[in-house]
Amino acid sequence: MYRLREEKVFKDPVHQSIYVQEATIWKLINTAEFQRLRRIRQLGTSYLTFHGAEHSRFSHSLGVYDITRRIISQFERNGYQDWPQEEKMVSLCASLLHDVGHGPFSHAIEQVFDTNHEEWSCAIILGDTEINRVLKEVSEDFPEKVAAVICKTYDKPIVVSLVSSQMDADRMDYLLRDAYFTGVNYGTFDLDRILRVLRPYRGRIVVKESGMHAVEDYLMSRYQMYWQIYFHPVTRSSDIVLRQIFMRARELFREGHAFKFLLPPLAQLLNGTIGLRDYLALDEAMVQTAFGQWADEEDEILADLCKRFLNRRLYKYVPLDNPHETLEEELREQWERIGLHPDYHLQMDTPTNLPYDVYKPGSPDPEPKEKTPVLVLDEKDRLTEISLKSDIVRSIAGLHTGKYYIYYPEDLVLPHVNRLKPEIREMLGL
Amino acid sequence: MYRLREEKVFKDPVHQSIYVQEATIWKLINTAEFQRLRRIRQLGTSYLTFHGAEHSRFSHSLGVYDITRRIISQFERNGYQDWPQEEKMVSLCASLLHDVGHGPFSHAIEQVFDTNHEEWSCAIILGDTEINRVLKEVSEDFPEKVAAVICKTYDKPIVVSLVSSQMDADRMDYLLRDAYFTGVNYGTFDLDRILRVLRPYRGRIVVKESGMHAVEDYLMSRYQMYWQIYFHPVTRSSDIVLRQIFMRARELFREGHAFKFLLPPLAQLLNGTIGLRDYLALDEAMVQTAFGQWADEEDEILADLCKRFLNRRLYKYVPLDNPHETLEEELREQWERIGLHPDYHLQMDTPTNLPYDVYKPGSPDPEPKEKTPVLVLDEKDRLTEISLKSDIVRSIAGLHTGKYYIYYPEDLVLPHVNRLKPEIREMLGL
Amino acid sequence: MYRLREEKVFKDPVHQSIYVQEATIWKLINTAEFQRLRRIRQLGTSYLTFHGAEHSRFSHSLGVYDITRRIISQFERNGYQDWPQEEKMVSLCASLLHDVGHGPFSHAIEQVFDTNHEEWSCAIILGDTEINRVLKEVSEDFPEKVAAVICKTYDKPIVVSLVSSQMDADRMDYLLRDAYFTGVNYGTFDLDRILRVLRPYRGRIVVKESGMHAVEDYLMSRYQMYWQIYFHPVTRSSDIVLRQIFMRARELFREGHAFKFLLPPLAQLLNGTIGLRDYLALDEAMVQTAFGQWADEEDEILADLCKRFLNRRLYKYVPLDNPHETLEEELREQWERIGLHPDYHLQMDTPTNLPYDVYKPGSPDPEPKEKTPVLVLDEKDRLTEISLKSDIVRSIAGLHTGKYYIYYPEDLVLPHVNRLKPEIREMLGL
Amino acid sequence: MYRLREEKVFKDPVHQSIYVQEATIWKLINTAEFQRLRRIRQLGTSYLTFHGAEHSRFSHSLGVYDITRRIISQFERNGYQDWPQEEKMVSLCASLLHDVGHGPFSHAIEQVFDTNHEEWSCAIILGDTEINRVLKEVSEDFPEKVAAVICKTYDKPIVVSLVSSQMDADRMDYLLRDAYFTGVNYGTFDLDRILRVLRPYRGRIVVKESGMHAVEDYLMSRYQMYWQIYFHPVTRSSDIVLRQIFMRARELFREGHAFKFLLPPLAQLLNGTIGLRDYLALDEAMVQTAFGQWADEEDEILADLCKRFLNRRLYKYVPLDNPHETLEEELREQWERIGLHPDYHLQMDTPTNLPYDVYKPGSPDPEPKEKTPVLVLDEKDRLTEISLKSDIVRSIAGLHTGKYYIYYPEDLVLPHVNRLKPEIREMLGL
Repeated sequence: MYRLREEKVFKDPVHQSIYVQEATIWKLINTAEFQRLRRIRQLGTSYLTFHGAEHSRFSHSLGVYDITRRIISQFERNGYQDWPQEEKMVSLCASLLHDVGHGPFSHAIEQVFDTNHEEWSCAIILGDTEINRVLKEVSEDFPEKVAAVICKTYDKPIVVSLVSSQMDADRMDYLLRDAYFTGVNYGTFDLDRILRVLRPYRGRIVVKESGMHAVEDYLMSRYQMYWQIYFHPVTRSSDIVLRQIFMRARELFREGHAFKFLLPPLAQLLNGTIGLRDYLALDEAMVQTAFGQWADEEDEILADLCKRFLNRRLYKYVPLDNPHETLEEELREQWERIGLHPDYHLQMDTPTNLPYDVYKPGSPDPEPKEKTPVLVLDEKDRLTEISLKSDIVRSIAGLHTGKYYIYYPEDLVLPHVNRLKPEIREMLGL
Repeated sequence: MYRLREEKVFKDPVHQSIYVQEATIWKLINTAEFQRLRRIRQLGTSYLTFHGAEHSRFSHSLGVYDITRRIISQFERNGYQDWPQEEKMVSLCASLLHDVGHGPFSHAIEQVFDTNHEEWSCAIILGDTEINRVLKEVSEDFPEKVAAVICKTYDKPIVVSLVSSQMDADRMDYLLRDAYFTGVNYGTFDLDRILRVLRPYRGRIVVKESGMHAVEDYLMSRYQMYWQIYFHPVTRSSDIVLRQIFMRARELFREGHAFKFLLPPLAQLLNGTIGLRDYLALDEAMVQTAFGQWADEEDEILADLCKRFLNRRLYKYVPLDNPHETLEEELREQWERIGLHPDYHLQMDTPTNLPYDVYKPGSPDPEPKEKTPVLVLDEKDRLTEISLKSDIVRSIAGLHTGKYYIYYPEDLVLPHVNRLKPEIREMLGL
Repeated sequence: MYRLREEKVFKDPVHQSIYVQEATIWKLINTAEFQRLRRIRQLGTSYLTFHGAEHSRFSHSLGVYDITRRIISQFERNGYQDWPQEEKMVSLCASLLHDVGHGPFSHAIEQVFDTNHEEWSCAIILGDTEINRVLKEVSEDFPEKVAAVICKTYDKPIVVSLVSSQMDADRMDYLLRDAYFTGVNYGTFDLDRILRVLRPYRGRIVVKESGMHAVEDYLMSRYQMYWQIYFHPVTRSSDIVLRQIFMRARELFREGHAFKFLLPPLAQLLNGTIGLRDYLALDEAMVQTAFGQWADEEDEILADLCKRFLNRRLYKYVPLDNPHETLEEELREQWERIGLHPDYHLQMDTPTNLPYDVYKPGSPDPEPKEKTPVLVLDEKDRLTEISLKSDIVRSIAGLHTGKYYIYYPEDLVLPHVNRLKPEIREMLGL
Repeated sequence: MYRLREEKVFKDPVHQSIYVQEATIWKLINTAEFQRLRRIRQLGTSYLTFHGAEHSRFSHSLGVYDITRRIISQFERNGYQDWPQEEKMVSLCASLLHDVGHGPFSHAIEQVFDTNHEEWSCAIILGDTEINRVLKEVSEDFPEKVAAVICKTYDKPIVVSLVSSQMDADRMDYLLRDAYFTGVNYGTFDLDRILRVLRPYRGRIVVKESGMHAVEDYLMSRYQMYWQIYFHPVTRSSDIVLRQIFMRARELFREGHAFKFLLPPLAQLLNGTIGLRDYLALDEAMVQTAFGQWADEEDEILADLCKRFLNRRLYKYVPLDNPHETLEEELREQWERIGLHPDYHLQMDTPTNLPYDVYKPGSPDPEPKEKTPVLVLDEKDRLTEISLKSDIVRSIAGLHTGKYYIYYPEDLVLPHVNRLKPEIREMLGL
């Protein structure tokens, strides 16, 4: 009943061809809300570090759908009893839509405005949208089911773990895709092999023991990608500049500053009152256009930050071996002394507060909302969390190698460098 | 004097690593005008056909620089007498900057507003810009030299042909890059081998005969890319919608329509009076933001076109085998009868008027402004234009397989389909 | 009934994973006759030109099986009526076994001893072999059916054309595989896309018109591979040396020469009386071992030729632009004058007599034993031979660019160069 | 003085093109002893597990040469003082020739006959060979210098560590090459990046700290390759069968058995008296030919083993969790009871005694003959062994995950299975 007469094909650099056979999926892709993902980059500001990383959340979402489709197709082909066949459609829709709530430069905006893309995804799925109307064609309660999978409250955990677990379709696609578009070759692993060793087993997706080395390789890739791509200090720098733009704009907005340029969605965002319609109008084009206009605002701090972002004149970074407790205080004091603004011209940073994790072991029966760890199924049908079996995984699982960094605008500090304390100068390498 | 103390590296998915050793190149990359290329897609609207094609002119420009650098390095390593070593710097700068004048969705804008990106490149190089200031550091007349190479008036044709000829660094990069990002494998050819068989010879870059098959392969790739990517009818459709947005907006502007949203660069563009500063402020973010706002304009045609573009509801296309001369007239008349606007809801199209050509043979001593053809150097130092040697090349060189297509908004026509003449309905497959 | 309990997987560099689901296929792969293909190189002496080309006919045969399996699986998935589903097993077996009759350095041996690998394939399938026994398990007449497909006498031409036509599984695999192992990138084409546009249609495999560009690309790859790999003059040189070894050995054998080393299969080969059992014992290891021993034979010509082959001291080649009719005569006369043997120390060669063809158009209803050409199916169900639709294909189809070459041992000629006629010396570049 | 007039190019699937610019290198490649490496597989019997792994030591040796050349070229380009420029030629020659002493199925032969390929390499370089004559053209003592590098007694440790250390050109090539030809993607790492972060430093090759993640990735690849490829139990099985053939043949030889087929080099090998000339005549073709003939020997054990090897009817393997001490004894006793030969029909195996190691940390100043560990150079010029800096490396460095396996011919055991003790049957899964 949902089959297209002729399957549709998307040419994809990562998966070669992505096939769509279901009318519902095809209609979802063609909604305004899903097409909007074309205007939101998958990796936020990373394109300022890796110029190839200009790919959108649109292409990633198609990729997650495709991997989910291939996993389910393997389960069906082999006739595994533990896979609930009636859950195919909800799984495919949830995998396609899991990121539909992402806004422009999502992580930065979430941090500054305390929003949450998962909640927005559910709002889009359940609200007055084209997506909601397409899903309702399946059944009246279908939008709720899809939203429940994305919010991890769905009553079939196996469906949730397809879309969201320590080895879900989401991660598999983004590691391969981000590696392809940045051009690094750390993120490559044997997707074909991993898909072949997945098994549905008592409400979970588990891994056959014979595939453990392939999973180790996937976790290693993930480890490498985090340190090489996601935590790259230059990307951190551009994220910091971006966040400071929003923080400064909000501060000015609260102070009643008369912006020369401020479209309603941005105003609502700064005001903390943004609704669904305005949120959907926000995209990276609008944010970049605003920055271009704000570069001419009278407020010097805002104008300077916007110019830095657009022209890629980012903050310099300096790693700190053992920052003492009062260092930040001290730096702020020094910054004020030379006329810089300690809130905007200085940032201390450690990557651990990023929305990525290398790998966390966990209980085979995790709390709701926790991600299922990777479980290995041996020939005698015993399940073991992978880090108990693999020395390699155990060793990365426990790693905390994030460094502290100071970020600051070198060009603004340099003219006043003589007025800084010698130990600070030395620490900053000035 | 121009060497960086430590070479800089860009990770590039196509060339793996792009090295910058010259301070001038590094400074040029960091100018505001060059960074702006990050906000302009290499393939215009093609991302609506191939979702991976989201790469920017920034990455392409780095690639052209890199190929040029490798060609020159090969010439230097082998000590070829016919290569004027003092031209290295002007060649590198021209290759990096050759596309710096591209605006957002360049080909569409050039067609509607009759601008020319090459002229803009020269205006940026010669005008009051950061780029101009960096180039002047080399020598007072250096900007003029770089501009002359790009405008093909430079007095050393060998330098012009590096950057602009039938087998220049520009094409070599874009074929490989566009193939990589779209995900097709038609565009791949053996770059390494081609770079090895190039020779400077009496003021031209020519190809050793032993490399002829590699060049055939390159020209075949080009042929395939044109038909598979550049002339793809879905991309033509999105280009048509885009052009019609601009045409409609200009028409409204001339009629004195009060746009709810119109930033100065756009107003100047519509007015035909855009200057350098405003041109540099135009980017695809601003254009997309305008479309998002215009989607709420009162003018129904403009609003409809903008929604189509953003939500990818493009015009349908129908190929025409042998369009008779009066067909367009007839269609326009029918369109008016059913209440559609023949200027905006109908477009006849053939790809031959695109800024791409498959391969044109030419004289070994072309007129100024004409592109040098590919010249083959045999063991007895005779030069021959390649299509005289290669049956394959001769066969593509003469091909004109562009089809006529009609493009129109199917959803607007369908409700009135009964009022169309039967032969028109049959032709449109309705 | 033929399904394996668990599918088997071969890791393959070209197709990633090759799956075997049928017990019959698995058993065929494990026969002694099929394992023997591991000791026969796919590209004969090409490894002396391209050192990576060391891959065996074993891996190619698995690849042909895999492509055939994917084509049939596509036909089944789409439920095409024109595909006779009961022919799956015979198609898979024939595709796996089509090359099983190849001997060591097959093309050279076929030329010298006038054998034919296709006949040997049928002899192996029908004779007293493990393969025959496995096939008989399917049904008593199954070996005959498989042999009929390979010998092109099977009464379902659609099955024959899967395994042997202008665009069969055989060619698709060898182009991709030979490109992979030699390391050239000419042979790559979009296999995935081609497999999707194939259709069973009235007893043939045809191509949907929308896939024509992909087919053009495949034929271009084939054209490039022929000139770059298969007709490479260095490979021709090693083939010539190889053939001359066999010719000399046969001559000596007929003269009653007492070889120090001559295993029965080789003796039977030289004697022209080789039977199935001895043929199956022949492999490239035995041939190379014989050459190693013959390098110490008293016959100087044979010893010299064997050393040349093993130590890769091949004949030099000189291209001839317009060889006049009596040139060969003249050269032979000169060769004799300087004490060389005109049969063994001289060879004139043109590639046209190779077992490869670039592309030959043909009738849609070819004579038995002729290969079906590529037929394009348009939207109105009309079939057209591709070269009538594609200028590109037409242009390669008619090409005869094979050059004449002279091959000779330069080191043996050099000492006597002064005694050669001046025009001959000039022609040889000596 | 050693430059070729025109550089030579080898097309290589791993490195694309391998360039030879020095006449000495070109001549070395063309010696009979080096060409012989074409007839010796890089991965021994692995082609029986991974059918693509048919590549030769010839191609690997060229690859090692190429990587060495690129490392040295980087050192020269950057003008590093710590690189002794006069050592270029000896480094290149040693890298090309480091494996020239390998015989057929080297590891198995070394184990059975207690030979050592490194010693053979030196014997070939110093003996009456074409290689020796080519090297002597450089200088009288040049062969000794090259041999000293290979035997790790050369007085410039930096040269030794290029060719032989924990991150030498040898390993970098074989990991990439073996991954390419087997078709797995575990072995890929960023060679380009690693080559860029190598530095000559006080008599060693060290790694800049900024490249540490790339080195981690390389060591991970190595770890994966060992478990996925080099220690693959099917390959172990074919190695065992091979060793047993040689052991049985030697036993028969010592007993005075009259072999129907036994060429002098094999006889000398079995006799333990093989000299340089005979060793050079040994290749895999001769070994396989012997096996083909021995398959008809009267000795049933030898004939059976040879057929198993040629027809890939290998021994079955069973992993053992905790083998008790007397297990082997017990199994041998049972084997004898059912009429099997415990020396030939049974083998217990653990991979730790293979000539591969995952990574061993070591002292920065290792004993002569020990491999230098990977040393990281930080910005303050401090050297640290990598496992002290990297948790990941530390975790693999200590891993001993090799399992015990029993190998045996299942088909010979099955008929007697009822006579085996129940606990043995259960352990063997029979």
